[in-house]
Amino acid sequence: MLFAIAQINPVTGALRQNAAGIRHFYEKARDRGAGLVIFPEMALTGSIPQDLLRYSRFLAETEDLIKVQLAPLTAHSPGAMLLGTCYRHQDKLYNAALLLKEGKVAAFYPKQVLESRAPFQEHSYFSAGRGSTYEQWHSFTVAIMVGEKSPAPEGGDSAAPSGGKRLLINPTASPYYFGRQQEREKAAAALAKEQCGALLVANMAGGNDELVFDGASLAYNHRGELLCRAASFAEEILYIPATDLFAPAEREHPDAQEDINTLRRALTLGIRDYFTKSGFDRALLGLSGGLDSAVTAALATEALGPEKVLGVLLPSDYSPLHSIEDARDLADNLGIETRTIPIAPFFHAYLQGLNRSGKPEKDLAEENLQARIRGDILMLLANRERRLLLTTGNRSELAVGYCTLYGDMAGAIAVLADLPKLIVYELARSINMSHGQEVIPAHTITKPPSAELRPHQVDEDSLPPYSILDPILAHYLDEMLSPAEIIERGFDEATVLKITALVDRAEHKRRQAAPSLRVISGLSRRIIPIVRGTE
Amino acid sequence: MLFAIAQINPVTGALRQNAAGIRHFYEKARDRGAGLVIFPEMALTGSIPQDLLRYSRFLAETEDLIKVQLAPLTAHSPGAMLLGTCYRHQDKLYNAALLLKEGKVAAFYPKQVLESRAPFQEHSYFSAGRGSTYEQWHSFTVAIMVGEKSPAPEGGDSAAPSGGKRLLINPTASPYYFGRQQEREKAAAALAKEQCGALLVANMAGGNDELVFDGASLAYNHRGELLCRAASFAEEILYIPATDLFAPAEREHPDAQEDINTLRRALTLGIRDYFTKSGFDRALLGLSGGLDSAVTAALATEALGPEKVLGVLLPSDYSPLHSIEDARDLADNLGIETRTIPIAPFFHAYLQGLNRSGKPEKDLAEENLQARIRGDILMLLANRERRLLLTTGNRSELAVGYCTLYGDMAGAIAVLADLPKLIVYELARSINMSHGQEVIPAHTITKPPSAELRPHQVDEDSLPPYSILDPILAHYLDEMLSPAEIIERGFDEATVLKITALVDRAEHKRRQAAPSLRVISGLSRRIIPIVRGTE
Repeated sequence: MLFAIAQINPVTGALRQNAAGIRHFYEKARDRGAGLVIFPEMALTGSIPQDLLRYSRFLAETEDLIKVQLAPLTAHSPGAMLLGTCYRHQDKLYNAALLLKEGKVAAFYPKQVLESRAPFQEHSYFSAGRGSTYEQWHSFTVAIMVGEKSPAPEGGDSAAPSGGKRLLINPTASPYYFGRQQEREKAAAALAKEQCGALLVANMAGGNDELVFDGASLAYNHRGELLCRAASFAEEILYIPATDLFAPAEREHPDAQEDINTLRRALTLGIRDYFTKSGFDRALLGLSGGLDSAVTAALATEALGPEKVLGVLLPSDYSPLHSIEDARDLADNLGIETRTIPIAPFFHAYLQGLNRSGKPEKDLAEENLQARIRGDILMLLANRERRLLLTTGNRSELAVGYCTLYGDMAGAIAVLADLPKLIVYELARSINMSHGQEVIPAHTITKPPSAELRPHQVDEDSLPPYSILDPILAHYLDEMLSPAEIIERGFDEATVLKITALVDRAEHKRRQAAPSLRVISGLSRRIIPIVRGTE
Repeated sequence: MLFAIAQINPVTGALRQNAAGIRHFYEKARDRGAGLVIFPEMALTGSIPQDLLRYSRFLAETEDLIKVQLAPLTAHSPGAMLLGTCYRHQDKLYNAALLLKEGKVAAFYPKQVLESRAPFQEHSYFSAGRGSTYEQWHSFTVAIMVGEKSPAPEGGDSAAPSGGKRLLINPTASPYYFGRQQEREKAAAALAKEQCGALLVANMAGGNDELVFDGASLAYNHRGELLCRAASFAEEILYIPATDLFAPAEREHPDAQEDINTLRRALTLGIRDYFTKSGFDRALLGLSGGLDSAVTAALATEALGPEKVLGVLLPSDYSPLHSIEDARDLADNLGIETRTIPIAPFFHAYLQGLNRSGKPEKDLAEENLQARIRGDILMLLANRERRLLLTTGNRSELAVGYCTLYGDMAGAIAVLADLPKLIVYELARSINMSHGQEVIPAHTITKPPSAELRPHQVDEDSLPPYSILDPILAHYLDEMLSPAEIIERGFDEATVLKITALVDRAEHKRRQAAPSLRVISGLSRRIIPIVRGTE
């Protein structure tokens, strides 16, 4: 018996297209002799369908496709299929895996532990299934567990294997976040070992809105030894002979190594799928000569190709010459087209019309106005040329609100909005390293970050160095420590109080921010009321 | 024995301020002789605290306040308090009502049916409690049910009342939506009748971000007859003598009457609390001479007072003279300040800089640009004068994407974004009716709606009349009918396909829309993936 894990990249909501893809993968694996082809959680619908699930026509269409197209594939075939999909049963809707066999839905296995966090919010769509149990399949004792939080099957570790080899099958759609792979493999190995069962994890691949599913599906033998691991961030079929599942591993697989390049691949796939799945192929972004726009441009170039990326230089009267030079150098290195549109004429038109003196008042409102003029220009070009605008801001500045709503926050997808500034630096260095040359100009990396919205402005005028800011933000936003607790960890009191107050005050901005690739925070991105008491 | 329902308006997250308010209401009711003062669900934290609940310091602070300030109030008093708050118990967090009595937490009653929908997502914060049961309190058999979806207590209808008068107490924080009050009262009356128990419903009042809690707390006798109803959209203490609860009602209360004015009061409170709770008192908005901005201005004037509202006229070269006149008439009628800033100079500066010819290309990109210039100006004034910008778009246009991201969609709070255009008309007429004069100029109501982004443009050039559009949108977005099902109901096929495609295509805009007062859709506002297959 040969098992196959079909690690596919479905398009959310594109049911017929996904069914065709499932058919293609199934037939390929069956022709190779697979007796069971395992698809990820929600393979037919894509993940996550959100309120598409509230349309009964959508549900009916999934059922039709299963009945008319997918189940029949297994009719005169020794190969069965385990398919992740939404499934109605007795007036309830489940996130389930269906066993398609001999032309029919032979069994269904509902997900037990629903993901409550945004954007999944599965409790508002699905009923939870009962605990999974072992059952007899030929010579195997099998338990199907849907989703990443599935608890071990009932009666697992206490009862002796009831006359067969134990096999755990886990179709899942687990989004990537940094550090995820090691965590996932550790848990998988422990489960296999504890249950004395082989384990097959079928994960989804592909970017969908803010989430990037990273694939890296897994097979473990009954001793919890890793047998094979599918590609990360790509489709693949993984074949596992049953004999391997219950024998010692032939060779030792190194532990998952995750480094800054893993993150880079996640971001690249996130960009690429955002574009291709929504029918766009061309991007544009503002190039400031600074780090964030340089890294975003490099990632977009990797994702879409240099001929699809337009860099727009939008210097203000406060932009030093080196900014323009750095931006041009970057574009030359990447081989992308640029246009240069100084914003001063537009800015002066506003000053003439809005300030009694006709001259700048040099207040925060005018700093924001300049950022918004840039946004207007970029959006005009995006609308006119059918491009998507990439937002370039990083998480550190978004957290403290050092960004302009409707200005530099504008865009279709924010590439770096989940990355602390220090990680953006790492990413820049790794991009240069892998190109074997300074694609991102050294000066862009070494100069002090600046919004360039007033003369000689640099971020550290008003913020602590990122080496202080980023850890404070991590304590406050990820570990949910209170300001007092952060101060207890040795940070300067005034700094902590200032930073946490800035973070709280910027909630309204983040609520209108462009969607962003959640590659660090995963599902735990903080959201608090906009209107709050501050005591 | 006298019961009191303290229908308060807490500020989300302002724990000390809310505790002081609770104390004030408690003491007032106790001094009137109340033996039990009932507060709404989450009275101490405000609703909804979202990720504030993930800070253990926040939870600890609620516990401190209860222990040090609130429970002690009941120490030497015959008056107990039933307080809605978050509550940790055996490593789990509950949304609970605490019985504070004789200086201590005498009992806690966790919410059983958690609200899974956004923005509540209670499954991601709280554990669900077990079913509520009846217990003996003096001569009463009492059951405490937290939240609006509480099922009837166990053993209710079958078992005979166990030696006492049955009393159901339901602390809740139920947000308002249109039609809600009748629905709520019908369910409450039915529950009381079915359980042969008196029922006290303590609802929250006040606006919090997108939600407006409408109060209208209720008391029913054991026959399901309404005894009294608290004010809508305001704080109040409702006193109910125990004797009334188990006697026939002395007079018949008319059923809740909800009309367009209820909606208007919800919107007004929503605006007012959005401002006052976040420390702002001044608003501005663009006045186009059209219906939406006129109604928004009238509501803002009701909420904040005319001296706090600034109307900005931003005519383009395509704005007919009557638009300016209508906007000025409106402002005069409302007594609000206006400023007029024609956008042509800014628009021409952009055309000079961006179009090779220096002349308009008259494409969609330039229509959007004009809307964004208006947004830039409004945001500059908002930033400079510490005002909040009100967004004026209605739900019909937001649904089909007839609005410009970062342009007319900009703002702190969108007042009408939940209202179909036909309801905005009704609201306009009701505002004029209640003023006894045409505060909103007749011409504003009767002229054909237009975005005025190109010459002689009117909405019905590209959209069906609102009398067709709005029902299609209701079928598609509220009832979740598929296009095919809507066509089956007798709508024109081409129109339905066009409208539903427009709606789907505008998902990315709505995702970056300003927060809006959810007074119609409640918690059921549709969200689908931005990146989707279209088949």
